Amino acid sequence: MAKLNWGMIGGGEGSQIGPAHRMGALADGNFTLAAGALDHDAEKGRAYAQQLGVAADRAYGNWQEMLEGEKTRDDKIDLVTVATPNSTHFEITKAFLENGFNVLCEKPMTMTVEEGEEIVKVSKASGKICAVNYCYSAYPMVREMRNMVANGDIGKVRVIVTNFSHGHHGDAGDADNPRVRWRYDPAMAGVSGQFADCGIHAMHMASFIAGDEVKEVSADFASTIASRELEDDAMVNFRMEGGTVGRLWTSSVALGRQHGFDIQIFGETGGMKWLSEQPNQVMYTPLGGRTQIMEKGEGGLSDEASRLSRVAIAHPEGFPMAVANIYVDLAAAIQGKPHGAYPTATDGLRSMAAVHTCVASAKAGGVWMNAVPDLLA
Amino acid sequence: MAKLNWGMIGGGEGSQIGPAHRMGALADGNFTLAAGALDHDAEKGRAYAQQLGVAADRAYGNWQEMLEGEKTRDDKIDLVTVATPNSTHFEITKAFLENGFNVLCEKPMTMTVEEGEEIVKVSKASGKICAVNYCYSAYPMVREMRNMVANGDIGKVRVIVTNFSHGHHGDAGDADNPRVRWRYDPAMAGVSGQFADCGIHAMHMASFIAGDEVKEVSADFASTIASRELEDDAMVNFRMEGGTVGRLWTSSVALGRQHGFDIQIFGETGGMKWLSEQPNQVMYTPLGGRTQIMEKGEGGLSDEASRLSRVAIAHPEGFPMAVANIYVDLAAAIQGKPHGAYPTATDGLRSMAAVHTCVASAKAGGVWMNAVPDLLA
Amino acid sequence: MAKLNWGMIGGGEGSQIGPAHRMGALADGNFTLAAGALDHDAEKGRAYAQQLGVAADRAYGNWQEMLEGEKTRDDKIDLVTVATPNSTHFEITKAFLENGFNVLCEKPMTMTVEEGEEIVKVSKASGKICAVNYCYSAYPMVREMRNMVANGDIGKVRVIVTNFSHGHHGDAGDADNPRVRWRYDPAMAGVSGQFADCGIHAMHMASFIAGDEVKEVSADFASTIASRELEDDAMVNFRMEGGTVGRLWTSSVALGRQHGFDIQIFGETGGMKWLSEQPNQVMYTPLGGRTQIMEKGEGGLSDEASRLSRVAIAHPEGFPMAVANIYVDLAAAIQGKPHGAYPTATDGLRSMAAVHTCVASAKAGGVWMNAVPDLLA
Amino acid sequence: MAKLNWGMIGGGEGSQIGPAHRMGALADGNFTLAAGALDHDAEKGRAYAQQLGVAADRAYGNWQEMLEGEKTRDDKIDLVTVATPNSTHFEITKAFLENGFNVLCEKPMTMTVEEGEEIVKVSKASGKICAVNYCYSAYPMVREMRNMVANGDIGKVRVIVTNFSHGHHGDAGDADNPRVRWRYDPAMAGVSGQFADCGIHAMHMASFIAGDEVKEVSADFASTIASRELEDDAMVNFRMEGGTVGRLWTSSVALGRQHGFDIQIFGETGGMKWLSEQPNQVMYTPLGGRTQIMEKGEGGLSDEASRLSRVAIAHPEGFPMAVANIYVDLAAAIQGKPHGAYPTATDGLRSMAAVHTCVASAKAGGVWMNAVPDLLA
Repeated sequence: MAKLNWGMIGGGEGSQIGPAHRMGALADGNFTLAAGALDHDAEKGRAYAQQLGVAADRAYGNWQEMLEGEKTRDDKIDLVTVATPNSTHFEITKAFLENGFNVLCEKPMTMTVEEGEEIVKVSKASGKICAVNYCYSAYPMVREMRNMVANGDIGKVRVIVTNFSHGHHGDAGDADNPRVRWRYDPAMAGVSGQFADCGIHAMHMASFIAGDEVKEVSADFASTIASRELEDDAMVNFRMEGGTVGRLWTSSVALGRQHGFDIQIFGETGGMKWLSEQPNQVMYTPLGGRTQIMEKGEGGLSDEASRLSRVAIAHPEGFPMAVANIYVDLAAAIQGKPHGAYPTATDGLRSMAAVHTCVASAKAGGVWMNAVPDLLA
Repeated sequence: MAKLNWGMIGGGEGSQIGPAHRMGALADGNFTLAAGALDHDAEKGRAYAQQLGVAADRAYGNWQEMLEGEKTRDDKIDLVTVATPNSTHFEITKAFLENGFNVLCEKPMTMTVEEGEEIVKVSKASGKICAVNYCYSAYPMVREMRNMVANGDIGKVRVIVTNFSHGHHGDAGDADNPRVRWRYDPAMAGVSGQFADCGIHAMHMASFIAGDEVKEVSADFASTIASRELEDDAMVNFRMEGGTVGRLWTSSVALGRQHGFDIQIFGETGGMKWLSEQPNQVMYTPLGGRTQIMEKGEGGLSDEASRLSRVAIAHPEGFPMAVANIYVDLAAAIQGKPHGAYPTATDGLRSMAAVHTCVASAKAGGVWMNAVPDLLA
Repeated sequence: MAKLNWGMIGGGEGSQIGPAHRMGALADGNFTLAAGALDHDAEKGRAYAQQLGVAADRAYGNWQEMLEGEKTRDDKIDLVTVATPNSTHFEITKAFLENGFNVLCEKPMTMTVEEGEEIVKVSKASGKICAVNYCYSAYPMVREMRNMVANGDIGKVRVIVTNFSHGHHGDAGDADNPRVRWRYDPAMAGVSGQFADCGIHAMHMASFIAGDEVKEVSADFASTIASRELEDDAMVNFRMEGGTVGRLWTSSVALGRQHGFDIQIFGETGGMKWLSEQPNQVMYTPLGGRTQIMEKGEGGLSDEASRLSRVAIAHPEGFPMAVANIYVDLAAAIQGKPHGAYPTATDGLRSMAAVHTCVASAKAGGVWMNAVPDLLA
Repeated sequence: MAKLNWGMIGGGEGSQIGPAHRMGALADGNFTLAAGALDHDAEKGRAYAQQLGVAADRAYGNWQEMLEGEKTRDDKIDLVTVATPNSTHFEITKAFLENGFNVLCEKPMTMTVEEGEEIVKVSKASGKICAVNYCYSAYPMVREMRNMVANGDIGKVRVIVTNFSHGHHGDAGDADNPRVRWRYDPAMAGVSGQFADCGIHAMHMASFIAGDEVKEVSADFASTIASRELEDDAMVNFRMEGGTVGRLWTSSVALGRQHGFDIQIFGETGGMKWLSEQPNQVMYTPLGGRTQIMEKGEGGLSDEASRLSRVAIAHPEGFPMAVANIYVDLAAAIQGKPHGAYPTATDGLRSMAAVHTCVASAKAGGVWMNAVPDLLA
């Protein structure tokens, strides 16, 4: 089987997200890193790409060069990953889609709802893949939960409670730390701080597992550190199309929480709990029964959960393998065997609509508002 | 030391709360069960009281009899516990206070804000103790957290997140089960279901630990089982007088949660987490430091935490001993050595104000409303 | 129901075990503290007993006085608790049994096997109760596990792994601390340090749950702090009469473990795990199935587990209530309704045999030895 | 940087260990899968290798072919992984070392002590790397613990307690299941069942973290399922060269344990605990202080722990990345920048000596025996 050619934009030396994508793309041997425009400093980017094994003529100085260079090659890249600063995702993703490339875009896919709608349209028109990296949805046990809901194992979902709260921005003394400050500055981060950063992961997860979409939201945003213009703590109540009640709390000042992303799903005939820091288990409680510990890799799981698990039961699999699972699904889709579960541009669009609607709701004192983007209404 | 005489109203044979109070009052040898009107069936109540060692002439048929019988005795009871159905708490508590008795009232203290205000006034006028059984506040490690906040150990409190969510009313088939149904029927339960039952424990806990009071609330109530008129799932956002942001979720349909009452407190320089199902530990994270496991009984805790712990470190102490700690504090207060930390009528009043304000806010679509009762404004 | 009269020897002011017994005896209203010889300082003991509500003429200066004073009274005590230094348990227990009193003796019941055998004989001859305070066996979920094994729910028990290891004697600088030092000094502690202190709890637990007895042992003892003559860390392999393999580790230098007493039982068709620091749950795994969390207070438990649980599911119950359960069983037995599950003199004797046999095995380099006392062979 | 060429023997289609090695070798982009003899069925092996991207002329039918084919190439493989059945490790490893290849051998490295000694000698003579895949030692937090001990952070190590116990062979009905049966059949598994399979991982871990070696052992082996000739449950007491006391329990009939490999290390001034199912944390308790949760990725960890961690704090990293860390270290060593922490042939030899000595000790009734191989004495 010939390997697929993969290109990356952003993710240069010292970035956090770069290695995660490279491990994810390379671990299963489906992709070769064939091209890259890895850094906003063109020379550094070219050098680093070559250090990673990219041929000199495909180690590009910027994404425009890369688009030009790749689009006419016979062996052009089969997939490009966009891992640049958030505000650039839109234009890069759009340009590559329009030129016939499959794209995996980091979240948030865009900064505005309008941009999100455009990506959805362009993606549709192009016939190409536009995936968004809500990678938590690719953990085997998350797929298992989604499958259980779809099977009716817990009945109609009544309530979803999800948190994505950490304490890494809890130091007021970090006000001038550029790695933290930009997140709460509208000039750089847009309309939302913590909700746009982490909350949308949690909201996507709720939709993904429930197999349903958020319809209305009511939000309460707070900036608990005075110098911050954007929220560092937010509570979002929501209702899904099917009536499910949602509670979503996200915070960056929750000292003591590390990667505090978890979800509880309560249905008519069962409840489930999953913690991103222990992603290989699901606590499942059937109505009237005891809580059971479901383990990744145990017998009898769904095909999705089994397919995406790599080592035996209770050998932990972590974040890099969740990212790798996104690439597994993309490789299959590119090769014409789509699994269909990876997040796409419509997910990216819904997130943007949620961000902007929550901001508006919070400003209006928690008023309930419709969060469905027009394009998907 | 002569023992104190104790009387009980309600808590008859087969009740859940009766044994908890008896263990609590008796375990430390401070109280003797001297009088009781234990059952709405007078004869059964008299018989059960005598079975528990109460003298025949103090085994009363109802609370009015008990009030008459006790008020003229030289050895009259030093404290009466009111553990009757919720709707009767007000009149019984009021009558005993007015006749010069110290009272420990089960929660909710009253059904309306007006009643709550009257109890506060009567209690004040009487000079007697009116305590309310928010017994979770008497766990040693809860006292420790309160002490840490008061000491400034975690700085100003930014955010409190508390949940009191279980799944014991999650079976739609229980619609006709009288032990469950009444809770969601306004004719019996009043204006609120789950929030009035469990939510007020969580809200009291937030105030108790923070040393601050709830000022404004915004609520979202849901009845996830169609036949229920009152909410079985509620989210309350709040702000405290000092600006602390609050997130309170309570549910009775959260399948898999048992006694899911927990609280997280996030301050400027530290965070803490406590779980009612593992009440002997606090997870404490200082800003910039590692999470530490604080243990009940460890060296260096506050006097309050040490005083209320009974057995050595890591020998677990549970719910009965938390109730007992309320009685320890009441015995001391009756004997003129008040510790002052037990919850009182003003706490009971604030809970009622919170219930009614949250109901109103939820009906109005989550509008923020002032929850401070006029009497305490 | 007239209350039972209870007396206590030892457990004076400042002792740890005294309050545990008083809470245990008083919490359920079955016993009145009627007599006491609480302190080796006669005057302090008399004063403290009266402070606890004992009449002046039953506040004794020592156990001999108490025996003389009580044995001729019409209202003599129905049960005496012996909570004195270990080396005195034998003579006091023997004397009270011989004079027709029921006795609850703290562990270890005796210092030698011969003494243990004598207590068993005296107890039998007297027709009185001689209980030994292996109180962990009275936790509801421990009774449940015993019941499950007896029911064959996990099949024949293949392996039991139990640890009772803490770190509270892990400071070499404590060499001169009298609260620690005596434990490792043969002149005060006898032939064994940590195994005699904590290990025998674990070994009793194994037997109690398995419904089987230890037959042979092979031990490895270590004194990890050089100044200690007796062991502070011990591993005991054992075989039970029915063939069950046992692994018992006990240590007092295990820094980071607090009250690290836990047990795992592995049978042909299921496994179970219980932790003394979270005593209200059992992790149960049926062969071929998922691990389930069993909760104290859940529906469907055995009568024993239900009878000894006092508050609703997931309201934690702790060590004081386990001690109280021993007193509940003793009250019932005294009143002629024995439940039979409380530990008795034969358990105390078996522990002594285990201690002395393990000491001998360890000295002989781990040689397997028979640990069944002659009297019970 | 030119990539290193990697070859694999064994690990064919459907094997568990094959994918773990491929993910490990490929994830970081250091290695290209250049050659393989993946299956005992030559044709299947050749086909599968090509499917994985190996050129047809380097897709070999067996290891002998591969050795012949590779040894004369200019671009010969830089590293060969041996992941064949246990009994073949010795001859393959030896042959490749003798022909100048670097080798990563699966455990157990050999079946006998004599073979182990020979590999050590051949490896030394060849000047080539002979690593053994004790991959748990490559978790970042395991490296951190090793570093802490080396730094004296917990003082001299007094006691190590380690378990590697699961329940996956607990079904007596599996007696005829070939995937299970061979493990307990001396004809296929050699002298030891569970200890040789899992116990040696635990023993290596103890040595690795302590920076010390096992000197003497005393073992108790049991076959709890009657049809098994070799042990399925074993307890090994040991002493290290520096005096550390060891307790190692391993079982395959521990129903309810999944991948139950954990270790506790108790020193003079601190204790640590690590669980392989939650490998990203260490519980650390300094003498006199509280237990702290150390997190992979937190600030201030050792260079080793930081270097081998790939994603941000509390983003879990699992087993595949631990294997990958072995390959990271090997790549560095091959490129002349050795880190030196990967396990080598002497570790493999010590394991064999431990296996054979424990078997002898258990047969002799737990007698203490010297476990140091002559070559390393």
